[in-house]
Amino acid sequence: MLRPTHAVLRPNVVVVGTGWAGAYFTRNLNCKLANLQVLSVRNHCVFTPLLPQTTTGTLEFRAVCEPISRIQPALATLPNRFYRCVVYGVNFDEKEVNCVGVGVVDTSFNATVQTFNIKYDKLILAHGARPNTFNVPGVMDNAFFLREVNEARGIRKRLVQNIMVADLPTTDLEEAKRLLHVVVVGGGPTGVEFAATVADFFRDDVRKINHKLVEFCKVTVLEAGEVFGMFDLRVRNWGKRRLDALGVRIVKGAVVTVNNKEVVTKDGIVIRTGLVVWSTGVGPSSLTKDLDVDRTSRGRISIDDHLRVLRKGAPISDVFAIGDCAANEKLPLPTLAAVASRQGAYLAKKVNGELSNKPIMAPFEYRSLGSMVSLGIMRPL
Amino acid sequence: MLRPTHAVLRPNVVVVGTGWAGAYFTRNLNCKLANLQVLSVRNHCVFTPLLPQTTTGTLEFRAVCEPISRIQPALATLPNRFYRCVVYGVNFDEKEVNCVGVGVVDTSFNATVQTFNIKYDKLILAHGARPNTFNVPGVMDNAFFLREVNEARGIRKRLVQNIMVADLPTTDLEEAKRLLHVVVVGGGPTGVEFAATVADFFRDDVRKINHKLVEFCKVTVLEAGEVFGMFDLRVRNWGKRRLDALGVRIVKGAVVTVNNKEVVTKDGIVIRTGLVVWSTGVGPSSLTKDLDVDRTSRGRISIDDHLRVLRKGAPISDVFAIGDCAANEKLPLPTLAAVASRQGAYLAKKVNGELSNKPIMAPFEYRSLGSMVSLGIMRPL
Repeated sequence: MLRPTHAVLRPNVVVVGTGWAGAYFTRNLNCKLANLQVLSVRNHCVFTPLLPQTTTGTLEFRAVCEPISRIQPALATLPNRFYRCVVYGVNFDEKEVNCVGVGVVDTSFNATVQTFNIKYDKLILAHGARPNTFNVPGVMDNAFFLREVNEARGIRKRLVQNIMVADLPTTDLEEAKRLLHVVVVGGGPTGVEFAATVADFFRDDVRKINHKLVEFCKVTVLEAGEVFGMFDLRVRNWGKRRLDALGVRIVKGAVVTVNNKEVVTKDGIVIRTGLVVWSTGVGPSSLTKDLDVDRTSRGRISIDDHLRVLRKGAPISDVFAIGDCAANEKLPLPTLAAVASRQGAYLAKKVNGELSNKPIMAPFEYRSLGSMVSLGIMRPL
Repeated sequence: MLRPTHAVLRPNVVVVGTGWAGAYFTRNLNCKLANLQVLSVRNHCVFTPLLPQTTTGTLEFRAVCEPISRIQPALATLPNRFYRCVVYGVNFDEKEVNCVGVGVVDTSFNATVQTFNIKYDKLILAHGARPNTFNVPGVMDNAFFLREVNEARGIRKRLVQNIMVADLPTTDLEEAKRLLHVVVVGGGPTGVEFAATVADFFRDDVRKINHKLVEFCKVTVLEAGEVFGMFDLRVRNWGKRRLDALGVRIVKGAVVTVNNKEVVTKDGIVIRTGLVVWSTGVGPSSLTKDLDVDRTSRGRISIDDHLRVLRKGAPISDVFAIGDCAANEKLPLPTLAAVASRQGAYLAKKVNGELSNKPIMAPFEYRSLGSMVSLGIMRPL
């Protein structure tokens, strides 16, 4: 709406996304050297490792959100900008990003979708990935994901609602048991943490709200492979014992369909449930699929050691990709906040260096400091 | 779903509603003397005086909610119960309350509405009132009320959304001004507090998020009578000066229609706006209208000095009404939290007395301790 009052000749650095990678880049970019334009549907960064805890009220939703304007205060003043929009394409030859604004209310009166383009001198793609449903029918309509705050809020609402309905005089025992059975599909860190959080909630909090329902509350983790698959055997066994102590049941099986009352596995097991949380990892978003770039075997944007985006094996000038949307085919890193944030910080340093004519030659290197999974309130086993 | 394991012969005290009146009654009832059954669509009490502050994030939503099971911990154990339901009728002769459960998900698969009845020995009606639209067309569809947490959340979301859209390159200046103009209809305490809160938010917080939009942010209070009408002239003038200092404009006028982009007054003034908050007091709910009881000239349930519900001028045995839904025709009290909470506490004492054969003869009396309106962050004028 407003244009800068005078021509500003600093280069335009455009960041797509406000996840871990985008937020760390945005925070560490030296805004004295560039005009910063951040494009995202989300005006905040979500502290995803603590998201499972918000579903049961252990943490408040707001506690896991940090507004991008607080992460980088320079965004409040022109010519820096945050645009709430969907990015649907990039023209690498014209050096521009194609956007469409979101949140335009009263669309019925204003039906023409208005698109706009943003020019870039340096482009950082950090738009993330999206949940992988493996095309299992019914997942989109009947399961919850756990990657965004509104999803966590939906889960919390459903949990509370199910407890209330289970206790109505018109609800029979079988239906109450179904409503109070939570099924988590996927035994990775997020799924297991959520399962432990809900088990804690059932044991400690539901008792306070409604003593008589506790015995019907149940949590099942469905996993096609191994729960805690990314850890070594010793840790894996400890984790399983811990889940067992919390009363979380682990069932081996691949889900073939989800409807509004049950989950069905390949082996024909039918699990009746009132809440399905789907947490089986991530795959490429539609933007990642649409871009004219090289992709890894897993469909991520192909990048080199310097996080530059590759096309026909060669880096596209001034275009970088970080976080879950991208990977180096030679050494693909896991889709973790730890990786994304370090890529963001590294790239900001690199871009700051380039803009001040002190280029950084060292490639990006990732050393894992270990992973952590929270399994509810600690207590001796 | 579950029945008490043995017959419990204590009387059934049934409370309809979890607002101020219902919550204070529930909290103060001696649960050793009675079985408590609380019926409400809301499993928490909202601290309404602080609700305006949640719309701009000054307070977190959760900070203004108190679960009914924490207000009265005895509700967690049988035979006490909380039922999440809508009460649609009362049969005073059979001494039973007619309910329908809410929050039953997957209604498409389960389309029969299941109703149930709850027997009472003592009934406390505290189901409140609902916003008064004066049948102005468009209010229900295009304006926000400010009585529930989900309404406050809707307002917050719309405010943030409008700020984001106003800043898109596809939004022209006139549209941006419309989006950033908040109109409050009603100059009572809630309306004025909300106006002051938003004005504070525009001045202090929007500056931090988006410096360049601040000058287009505007708040208007529309009032047919007098702003601060319930206060005396001196306080009223001070309040007006204070609103003026905050940049809140006061316009005199009665609204005749609201559409999705403007508010129109009787005098033909058209105010273009991106957010309308409707706060013109309350009127009787549909339950109040449907009950076979006497009603006051304002449509509230008619009660006597002892808060007993009247039918044909005589008290119905064991039925009481408190809070916004009820009034004593001889001395109608304002619909304030202060009145409702004191009625709730008085009635609990009275019922406790009756149940332990120590009846309380003194009628309910209300002495106002004064009212308070918060007008944003205090600063010297």
